[in-house]
Amino acid sequence: MAQKPSIPKGTRDFSPVEVAKRDYIFATIKSVFQTFGFQSIETPSFENLQTLMGKYGEEGDRLIFKILNSGDYLSKADATLLTNKESQKLTTVISEKALRYDLTVPFARYVVQHQNEIEFPFKRYQIQPVWRADRPQKGRFREFYQCDADVVGSDSLWQEVDFIQLYDTVFSKLGLNGVAIKMNNRKILSGIAEIIGASDKLIDFTVALDKLDKIGKDGVTKEMIAKGISEEALEKVAPLFDFTGTNQEKLNQLQEMLVASEEGTKGVEELRFIIDNIESIGLQTASLTLDVTLARGLNYYTGAIFEVAAPEGVKMGSIGGGGRYDDLTGIFGLKDMSGVGISFGLDRIYLVLEELGLFDEVAPPRPEILFINFGNDEALYATKAIAKLRQQGIKSELYPSAAKMKKQMMYANRRSIPYVVLVGEKEMKEGTYTLKNMESGEQLMYKLDELLQVMN
Amino acid sequence: MAQKPSIPKGTRDFSPVEVAKRDYIFATIKSVFQTFGFQSIETPSFENLQTLMGKYGEEGDRLIFKILNSGDYLSKADATLLTNKESQKLTTVISEKALRYDLTVPFARYVVQHQNEIEFPFKRYQIQPVWRADRPQKGRFREFYQCDADVVGSDSLWQEVDFIQLYDTVFSKLGLNGVAIKMNNRKILSGIAEIIGASDKLIDFTVALDKLDKIGKDGVTKEMIAKGISEEALEKVAPLFDFTGTNQEKLNQLQEMLVASEEGTKGVEELRFIIDNIESIGLQTASLTLDVTLARGLNYYTGAIFEVAAPEGVKMGSIGGGGRYDDLTGIFGLKDMSGVGISFGLDRIYLVLEELGLFDEVAPPRPEILFINFGNDEALYATKAIAKLRQQGIKSELYPSAAKMKKQMMYANRRSIPYVVLVGEKEMKEGTYTLKNMESGEQLMYKLDELLQVMN
Repeated sequence: MAQKPSIPKGTRDFSPVEVAKRDYIFATIKSVFQTFGFQSIETPSFENLQTLMGKYGEEGDRLIFKILNSGDYLSKADATLLTNKESQKLTTVISEKALRYDLTVPFARYVVQHQNEIEFPFKRYQIQPVWRADRPQKGRFREFYQCDADVVGSDSLWQEVDFIQLYDTVFSKLGLNGVAIKMNNRKILSGIAEIIGASDKLIDFTVALDKLDKIGKDGVTKEMIAKGISEEALEKVAPLFDFTGTNQEKLNQLQEMLVASEEGTKGVEELRFIIDNIESIGLQTASLTLDVTLARGLNYYTGAIFEVAAPEGVKMGSIGGGGRYDDLTGIFGLKDMSGVGISFGLDRIYLVLEELGLFDEVAPPRPEILFINFGNDEALYATKAIAKLRQQGIKSELYPSAAKMKKQMMYANRRSIPYVVLVGEKEMKEGTYTLKNMESGEQLMYKLDELLQVMN
Repeated sequence: MAQKPSIPKGTRDFSPVEVAKRDYIFATIKSVFQTFGFQSIETPSFENLQTLMGKYGEEGDRLIFKILNSGDYLSKADATLLTNKESQKLTTVISEKALRYDLTVPFARYVVQHQNEIEFPFKRYQIQPVWRADRPQKGRFREFYQCDADVVGSDSLWQEVDFIQLYDTVFSKLGLNGVAIKMNNRKILSGIAEIIGASDKLIDFTVALDKLDKIGKDGVTKEMIAKGISEEALEKVAPLFDFTGTNQEKLNQLQEMLVASEEGTKGVEELRFIIDNIESIGLQTASLTLDVTLARGLNYYTGAIFEVAAPEGVKMGSIGGGGRYDDLTGIFGLKDMSGVGISFGLDRIYLVLEELGLFDEVAPPRPEILFINFGNDEALYATKAIAKLRQQGIKSELYPSAAKMKKQMMYANRRSIPYVVLVGEKEMKEGTYTLKNMESGEQLMYKLDELLQVMN
C-alpha cells in the first residue's frame, strides 16, 4: 500500500513560481546589504542544545525543536525519569542538539567563537531558515527564513541612521513605497517607568497606551488604573496621552516630561540624533515615526527599537524590526560588545507584494527555445545547435522524445516558451533552422550563426 | 559562568570568505541548470518520519536525524518500552518528524503530491542542505548541501546525453578542466550477473574487478574465485579482464560478451546511443569513459549510472554522480514515472577548486569606499554622498565613530577597501570630497557628481 504523500504541518513546499518570487526578495535584500557594506556568514542548522536553551524565555525553550540523539539514546537515561514519564527532564538526557530558533543567538555564539578572526566593527548579514514549534496559523510557519543584518563592536548612533536608510532602500527597491519605520528607545521606556514609579508595570503601561487610537484617552487611563498605576503617576506622563505632531514636537514633549530621569533624557538625545540626521539626509519612499508605544523585546534591547509597518491600507503585522543590544555576546563570555541589528520578515513581505501586485514581472527562468523532436537524426542535429546556444547562455532545450507535434507544441505553450525550432530533412540538408515565434506564429529560417545572433 | 561557545561535531560555521566561495559554486551550477531548462523547487527541512524511513536501507534509517515531538512526548509511550529502554521502538512513538536525508526522496514525494500542478516531463533542480548522523571525518559532514537536477516523466536517452553535457558545462565554467565522466548501465551489470550465473555475487564481482589496475588480472581472478565465482563463469566474461581501448572498442567487446543476455544487450544499446551522440556533439573539457566497474546505488538505479572523477592528479572521491531510476515515485503511489538525475558534491568540488587555486578571483563583496569619520558634522556631510553612491549600487560606508585616523585607515586596509574619502572643513566649505587610492596613495578632490562618475 503506497503512502499518501504529505508534509509536516507548518512547513511548505515551494514550486518554481514561488521560489522565483522568494528569490527576488532575497536577492533584493542581499544586494542592498552588500551595498551597505555587510558580509554574509552562515551557521549550522542545529546548535548544541545548551547554546539555545534559556535564551528565549520559558516559552521559547518549549518551542525549540530538539533533535533526538542517535543510537541507543535511552541507555544512560535514569530509570525513574522514564517510569514517571518526566518528558521535560528527560529531554536534556536524550537530546543534545536543537534546530536554530533565530539567527541572533547563533550570531552571538559565532562572534565569540571567531572573535580573533573578525575585524571589528563587524557588519554581517545572514539569510537562513529558522524553526519554531509554534501553532501554525495564517502567515506563521514552523520553518521560515529570517534575513538579518547586524553590526557589533560599535556603539555609534550612525549605525542606527544607516539601518533606517537600509530599510528605506530595500522597500523602495521592492516597489513597496510608503512603509512606516517606527522607532522608539528602550531608555525612554525606562525613563517612563522611573516617572510612573514602577518598572514592573511598564509592559501594562505600553500595552494600554498602544490602544489610544481605539479606546481613547479615557479608556486607556481606566485600563492603566485597573492595572495598578496611580493617578498621580499618570499625571506625570500626561503628554503621552496627546502624543501627536511631528517627530520634533514629540521629541520636545518627551524631553520635558523625562527631564527628571537621566536615562530617559539620554534616550531622547539618542532619538534626536537619529531623527535629525535622517531628516537632513532624507529618505526615498519610507517615513520615520517616533512611536513611544513600541516596546518589542523589552528584556533584550537596550537602545533604539525599530519596527516597520506595511504601507497604509495593507493589513499586516510588522514586516521588519530590530534594535540595539548592549550585551548580546556576554552570555558566551565576551563583554562590552555593543550591537545593533535589523531583520526582514520574508513571509509577510511576500504576502504584501502579492496583495499589491508587485510580483507582476517576477517569473521562474524558463527556456527561450524548445527544439521540436522529429526523430533521432533531427534531434542530434538540434542538439548541436542547442549546445552552441547554451554556451552563449541562451536557455534552450530539446523535447526529449519524438512525440506528436501537437503534444510538443502544447508543452511549449504550457511552459510559456516563446520560440520553437523546427528541423526536418530540408533544414538538415541546407544547414538551417526554422524558428517559430509562438506568439505571432511567424516562421523564419536561419543558418546557425544567424540563429545565435537573433537569439542573443 | 559563561558558556564556552562551540558547535555540534560534523557541522560548520562559514565565514564571509567561505560563503563567497561556496556561493560562487552554487551560482555557477544554478546558472547552468537554468540554461539547460531546469527550474528550482524547495521542500521542507524536515519530513514526516514515515516519508523517509525504509527508503535508505537499515543503515540509512539509523543515520536519519529524528526530531523529538513537542510537549509531553512521553505521555502516550508504552510503559514497558520505557522500562526496557527500547530506544529503537520508542523512536516512532516520540518522534514523528525527521531531517531530510537526501533530496531525491523528498523530490519523489513532491512529484506525487503535486502531480496535478506539474507539466511533465518535469525538469527540476534543488539546492538545499541535507543531514546525516554519519561519523564525521575529513570531507564528510553531518550537514552538507546537495545540488540535484532530475527529469521525471520521460524515458528518452536524450536526457542522459543532456546530463553529460551539463556536467561538462558546469566543470568547464568552474575552470575545472579534464574531469572524467564515468558511465555504466545497470542493465549491463545485470547481464554480467546472468552470464556468471549469480546475481548475488555481482557486488563481489564488481568490487574485485575495480582492483584490476592495482592487483592485476591474476589477483582479481583469485579474489573472485575466493568469493565463490566459478572459473567457468569467469571465462565467459574474460573480455572484462582486458577491458581497455576506446569507448567504441569496449562497446563492441561488451556486445559480444553479453549477446546471450537480453537485458545486457539492451544496456549495451543504451550506452551506445549515448556515447555515439556525445562523440558527435563533442564536449568542452570533460571526457566520457565507459567504466564497467561502476556500480553505485545498485538497488536504486535501473539504467545509466554516472560518476564524475576530479582531473588526474587530484586525489578525491567522486565529485558528482547520478543515474536513471524507473520507479522512484512508486513508493508514493505514482507508477511508471521514469526519471534520471545527477548530483554535484559541493564540499568536494570546493576542496578541489581550493587545491588547484581556482578560487583566486573569488572574494566576498567588500565596500569600495570607506568615508573617514572626523566628527558628526563631517559624518553627516559624508553620509549624504554615501546615500547617492549606494543608490548607484556602489558599495560604500562611513567609519562609525570619529576614532583616530590611524585606526580608521587600518580598518580600510584590513578589509581591503580600495578607496577612502577624507572630508574636512575645507571640503565641506567647497562642497568637495578628497578621494584617496589606498594602493597608490594618490589623492584627488572631486565634487559629488564627479565622485559618482569616477566610481561608476
